[in-house]
Amino acid sequence: MDDPSTSATGSSEGMTSRDYYADSYAHFGIHEEMLKDTVRTGSYRAAIINNPHLFKDKTVLDVGCGTGILSMFAARAGASHVVGIDMSNIIDQAVKIIEANGFKDTITLVKGKLEDTELPIQQFDIIISEWMGYFLLYESMLDTVLEARDRYLKPGGLIFPDHATMYIAAIEDQEYKEEKINFWDNVYGFDYSCIKDIALREPLVDTVEMKAVATDPCVLKRIDLATVKKEDLKFSAPFELRATRTDFVHAFLAWFDISFDCTHKKVSFSTGPHARYTHWKQTVFYTPETLRISEGEKIVGKLTCSPNARNNRDLDITIAYSTPNSARIRVEYKMY
Amino acid sequence: MDDPSTSATGSSEGMTSRDYYADSYAHFGIHEEMLKDTVRTGSYRAAIINNPHLFKDKTVLDVGCGTGILSMFAARAGASHVVGIDMSNIIDQAVKIIEANGFKDTITLVKGKLEDTELPIQQFDIIISEWMGYFLLYESMLDTVLEARDRYLKPGGLIFPDHATMYIAAIEDQEYKEEKINFWDNVYGFDYSCIKDIALREPLVDTVEMKAVATDPCVLKRIDLATVKKEDLKFSAPFELRATRTDFVHAFLAWFDISFDCTHKKVSFSTGPHARYTHWKQTVFYTPETLRISEGEKIVGKLTCSPNARNNRDLDITIAYSTPNSARIRVEYKMY
Repeated sequence: MDDPSTSATGSSEGMTSRDYYADSYAHFGIHEEMLKDTVRTGSYRAAIINNPHLFKDKTVLDVGCGTGILSMFAARAGASHVVGIDMSNIIDQAVKIIEANGFKDTITLVKGKLEDTELPIQQFDIIISEWMGYFLLYESMLDTVLEARDRYLKPGGLIFPDHATMYIAAIEDQEYKEEKINFWDNVYGFDYSCIKDIALREPLVDTVEMKAVATDPCVLKRIDLATVKKEDLKFSAPFELRATRTDFVHAFLAWFDISFDCTHKKVSFSTGPHARYTHWKQTVFYTPETLRISEGEKIVGKLTCSPNARNNRDLDITIAYSTPNSARIRVEYKMY
Repeated sequence: MDDPSTSATGSSEGMTSRDYYADSYAHFGIHEEMLKDTVRTGSYRAAIINNPHLFKDKTVLDVGCGTGILSMFAARAGASHVVGIDMSNIIDQAVKIIEANGFKDTITLVKGKLEDTELPIQQFDIIISEWMGYFLLYESMLDTVLEARDRYLKPGGLIFPDHATMYIAAIEDQEYKEEKINFWDNVYGFDYSCIKDIALREPLVDTVEMKAVATDPCVLKRIDLATVKKEDLKFSAPFELRATRTDFVHAFLAWFDISFDCTHKKVSFSTGPHARYTHWKQTVFYTPETLRISEGEKIVGKLTCSPNARNNRDLDITIAYSTPNSARIRVEYKMY
């Protein structure tokens, strides 16, 4: 289905005008998509509900609580008190939902930006948050989770999830590259190549079949939520991708895994092409030229990722790479 | 595919801050969808390119020209000069496209709001525009086209397209209503019925199969572009829907047809459930309760449509209806 709306309704004190109009989380459609992502929501449920020994009589902070689903999981798991915070107007619905489900005394909801708000509890045993964006870091709430950790988490407290790992591989993707990129060479007989240049530099969030993957995957970045610092999210990661077959390569593919290592059975899930569908899909970076690789050869490169200097919600991503058959190429991408 | 971005880049003088951040047309993704809608773009091409007798040596105004595709069709059809106007930053790309395709001398592009701009030509023989939104009128540019007609069209000049017709029918849609509406009754065991109330009142833009349609269609509104006034777009239309079979009814369905009656072969297309896919799909209005109808019985009702008083890009739509088995019900919907 398509959602005809991205605009916000209602009002919210303390938001800047950009925040206000950008409050896409105020619309229920995005929460519907996230709730119906059963890999996502089911993993959080398993990590929380199946581990009451971790939650019993504990205080829990839910960062970016949305409709309150994780807060209610924590309350069900035996938390003594849960505080959920969200700056989007969706929290007005969360208030109704919490009340309708009998959690008014266990869950306290706070509307606002964590950075600017005083919470009713000063120290929490556990932080829970679903902060992940496309490519893990695009429009993610990780900065806010780290702020919450540093200000509110008791020493030795738990963070759900506690680990994230980013991966990269290379894919054969001729057919879809024709449709998405080369389409602009000839639009009803007209030359639209200026749009082609723009399209190429914008990573595409899409599902890719496992059979398209033509190399081994390589870890780009491991994030330990207990220790990572905001500065670490600006990073440069070398990679080596060994071809698992002789093929053409049209793009790099990135995805991430999430784990709750503090749980009894170490709940985890992957957003990779080998795993079940999630709303994060994967992220495709088309290369300007097609690469040729033979089985066993390596694509050697480096991915650099940093928030855009002008708008730190945008991501500047650079991929530099070479193969045994081609000189080093460097492509600048932008997620915005 | 999903588009990770709805935000605008670049800058544009004369836009309000809301317009600026709402400039979703600045992103190429929306133009890609419209260009790849071959029913839409192919119909305009047929109406323009196949009718050079109408365009030869004529002046043409393209309202909301986007990437300039319709302007280039008009130039190809022999227009002496084309002026394309658009307030979105996408026009910066249109300038490059026009030049790359050798139309720099034939097509003049103007960035701005038609209402606030002086055009380089004062009288045009033909206005072309693809102004239609979801449900025809949601976020449509029809107001701007009417302003262009009244200010710039020569007496007896042509408008492409020149007619639009809105339709309504009733559909059996139990399975999808479960997924979209009743889902909120039980979300991982929790009661989300406050969201259900919101979801029900928001028309859903989606494709519906012809076999779901359980009644004859009924015309809601005919729009003659040559004569319609802005006030006419706030309307109240009675309807009678005769059941073509005995079935349950879960929603009303609306769509529209577009025609270029001034062309030699009267080019037209439909966005209805019987026709080929278009990016406008259809619009579904779920009813709070399921209706029972028997073959030959009629659902009698009235649809009222008006721009929202606070934000005139939003649409307030009311549907009041009754069947031989049920009392009159009135539901207020909002497209925003």
